[in-house]
Amino acid sequence: MKKIVVDMMGSDLGTQATVGAVLTFHKDHPDYQIFAVGKQEELEPLKEAATIVDARDVVPMTAGALEVLRMKTSSMVVALDTFLAEKADGIISAGATGAFLSAVTLKLKKIPGVLRPALITNFPNLKKGGYVTLLDVGASNENTPEEMAQFAFMGTLFAKAVFGLENPEVKLLANGTEEGKGSPEGKEAFKLLSEDKRINFQGNTEGSAVFTDTADVVVTDGFTGNVMLKSSEGAIKAMSGLMKKGFKKNFKRKMGYLLAKGAIKELKAVLDPKNVGGAMLIGVNGVAVKAHGNSTDVSFRSAMEVEYRMIEAGITEKIAQGFKEAEQ
Amino acid sequence: MKKIVVDMMGSDLGTQATVGAVLTFHKDHPDYQIFAVGKQEELEPLKEAATIVDARDVVPMTAGALEVLRMKTSSMVVALDTFLAEKADGIISAGATGAFLSAVTLKLKKIPGVLRPALITNFPNLKKGGYVTLLDVGASNENTPEEMAQFAFMGTLFAKAVFGLENPEVKLLANGTEEGKGSPEGKEAFKLLSEDKRINFQGNTEGSAVFTDTADVVVTDGFTGNVMLKSSEGAIKAMSGLMKKGFKKNFKRKMGYLLAKGAIKELKAVLDPKNVGGAMLIGVNGVAVKAHGNSTDVSFRSAMEVEYRMIEAGITEKIAQGFKEAEQ
Repeated sequence: MKKIVVDMMGSDLGTQATVGAVLTFHKDHPDYQIFAVGKQEELEPLKEAATIVDARDVVPMTAGALEVLRMKTSSMVVALDTFLAEKADGIISAGATGAFLSAVTLKLKKIPGVLRPALITNFPNLKKGGYVTLLDVGASNENTPEEMAQFAFMGTLFAKAVFGLENPEVKLLANGTEEGKGSPEGKEAFKLLSEDKRINFQGNTEGSAVFTDTADVVVTDGFTGNVMLKSSEGAIKAMSGLMKKGFKKNFKRKMGYLLAKGAIKELKAVLDPKNVGGAMLIGVNGVAVKAHGNSTDVSFRSAMEVEYRMIEAGITEKIAQGFKEAEQ
Repeated sequence: MKKIVVDMMGSDLGTQATVGAVLTFHKDHPDYQIFAVGKQEELEPLKEAATIVDARDVVPMTAGALEVLRMKTSSMVVALDTFLAEKADGIISAGATGAFLSAVTLKLKKIPGVLRPALITNFPNLKKGGYVTLLDVGASNENTPEEMAQFAFMGTLFAKAVFGLENPEVKLLANGTEEGKGSPEGKEAFKLLSEDKRINFQGNTEGSAVFTDTADVVVTDGFTGNVMLKSSEGAIKAMSGLMKKGFKKNFKRKMGYLLAKGAIKELKAVLDPKNVGGAMLIGVNGVAVKAHGNSTDVSFRSAMEVEYRMIEAGITEKIAQGFKEAEQ
C-alpha cells in the first residue's frame, strides 16, 4: 500500500481547502494510505479516510530554512517526520515555499549523485498538446552549469515517467534561440548538454516560445525559472482581470460574455497554473509536491493528483536508478 | 529643427511597414526633419515628407556586432552614419536587435559615466494606470550590481522625463518580495540602491507583480529582463490564440464574440507590446528606438511616437546631466 503524508495546515484557507481534497482523493484512490497532519479537531471529517496526526502550529510564510526545522510541532515538520517514520512515498504541503523546500531537502535528503534538487512546474504545450516541464523554478537562487545539466537529465526522466514520453525534447532557456545566446552559466550548460547522450538536447528556446515550442523539457537556473513562471502567471492574471472588467462595461458586452463564457472558462482551465497543481521538488528521496499557498480545495486536489501520478510513475526510483547508472 | 533618422528596411515587411508610418509621422510632426534610409526607388512616396538617403542592403537578423559594422552599405549602418553626420536627435530601426544595439553603442557611444546602456520597455501598470518602465531587457547578457544600480538611476530619469512622474518608485526584480531575495548580483544591487539618495527605492518585486505593483521602474539584469519580457509576451499571445480558437467553436460563442469583441480589442490594445512601441536603448548619445522586427505600419508608427516623446522630453540631455552631477 502506497503512503502519502498531507500537511493539512499550509494553505491560506487552512483545513477548509485541504479536508475536501483529501476526502475526494481517498474516494478516487482507496488503495492509498493517507496521513493527515494538522489540528485534530479540524480533521474530524477525515477519520474514515485518513490516519490523523495531530500538529498544532503553522509555519509562517516568512519562515527561513533553519527557523522551520526548529518548529518541531508545526504541521510541516510533523508531516516530514511522519514521512520518515512511515517510510512514505510522497508528501504534499501548501505552506511556505522556502521553508518547505529546505526542510524537505534536509529531512528527505538528496538522491545520491544529485547536486541540487529542482523545483518543476508544467506549462500547457499549445503546439503539441500535453505539457512542457520547466525546471528549476526556484529551488535554487543560482545554479552552476553542472547543476543545470543535471536538471535536463532529471527533467527527461520526469517527462518520460509522468507523461510517458519516449524521447523528450530538451531545450535551454535563453535570451534568443541561436547558439551562443544565454546567461554565462547557460552557455556552459549548453556545452555539457550537447555532449550528454542521455538527453535529446535541441538547443536554445526563449521565454516567448515556451508555450508554443516543440520542447518537452525546458531547463534554466532557479532564479530565471522563477521569474519566468511568475511573469507568465502575472501576465495571464492581468489579462483575465482586464477581460472581466471589459465584459462588464455595457449591456451588449455582458450579453456577449454570457454567450461566449464557455470559451473563457476553457481558456482559464488550460492556462491556470492552479490546474496544473503546484510545483514538484525532484531529486530528493520521495515525491514532494508544493501546492499553491492560496490553494482552494479544487487546486489542492489537483496537486494531490500530481503527487499520485508521480508516485505511480515511480519517479523517485527512476531518478535514483538514472543517477546510479550515470556513476557506473 | 529636430532631426530623426529612420532605417526604412529593418522590418520583416520592409518598406511596406515603414513608409506609411513615416508619412503620418510627418503629418503629425511637420517640425521634424526625417532622414529616410533605404532603397530610394521604394522611398519615392516620401519625397515630400523626408530627406531620402539611399542604402541598398539589409542587415540579416543573425548578424553579430562586428559583422554589422562591416556592412557599410546596409540601411542600418548608413542610418547611423547619417545620424552622426547630421548631428541628429534620434534613430529608429526594426532591424536585427543584437546588431542594432552593438552598432548604436559603438557609433553613438555611451554618455560619460554610464557603465552600460540599457534596453527599456514599458508595461501597462494596471494598478496605477500609466506605464511601468522595465530595464534592462537585453542590451547586456549579464550585469554587475553597479550596472544595475545605474539602470535604476537611468530608469528614474526616464520615467521623470517621458512620463512626467515626480518621484518614480523603483523596485528590483527578484524571486520574492522580501529583502534577501534575488540573484547574487541583485542582492548586491539591493544594497547599492538602498544607499542611493537619488532614487526612490522601495525594495523587491517579482515577476507576477510587475503588472500590478506600485513600482514605476523595475530594475533587473539584461538576461532576466529579456526572459521576463518574452515570457509575458508569450503568455499573452498564447492566451489570445486560445481565446480566438475557443470563440470559433460553436454558433453561440461566435455570437457572443461579436457582441463582446470590443472588450477583447481593448484588452489587446492595452497589453500588446506592439502598442507600447518597441524598446529604447538609453545611456547612449542619442535617442535610439528598436521597433519590433515584425513591425506593421501601426506598430512602427507607434515606435516613432515613442522616439518623438523621448526626444521632446530631452532624455539624452537629462541622463548626461544626471551623470555629470553624480560625478561632481
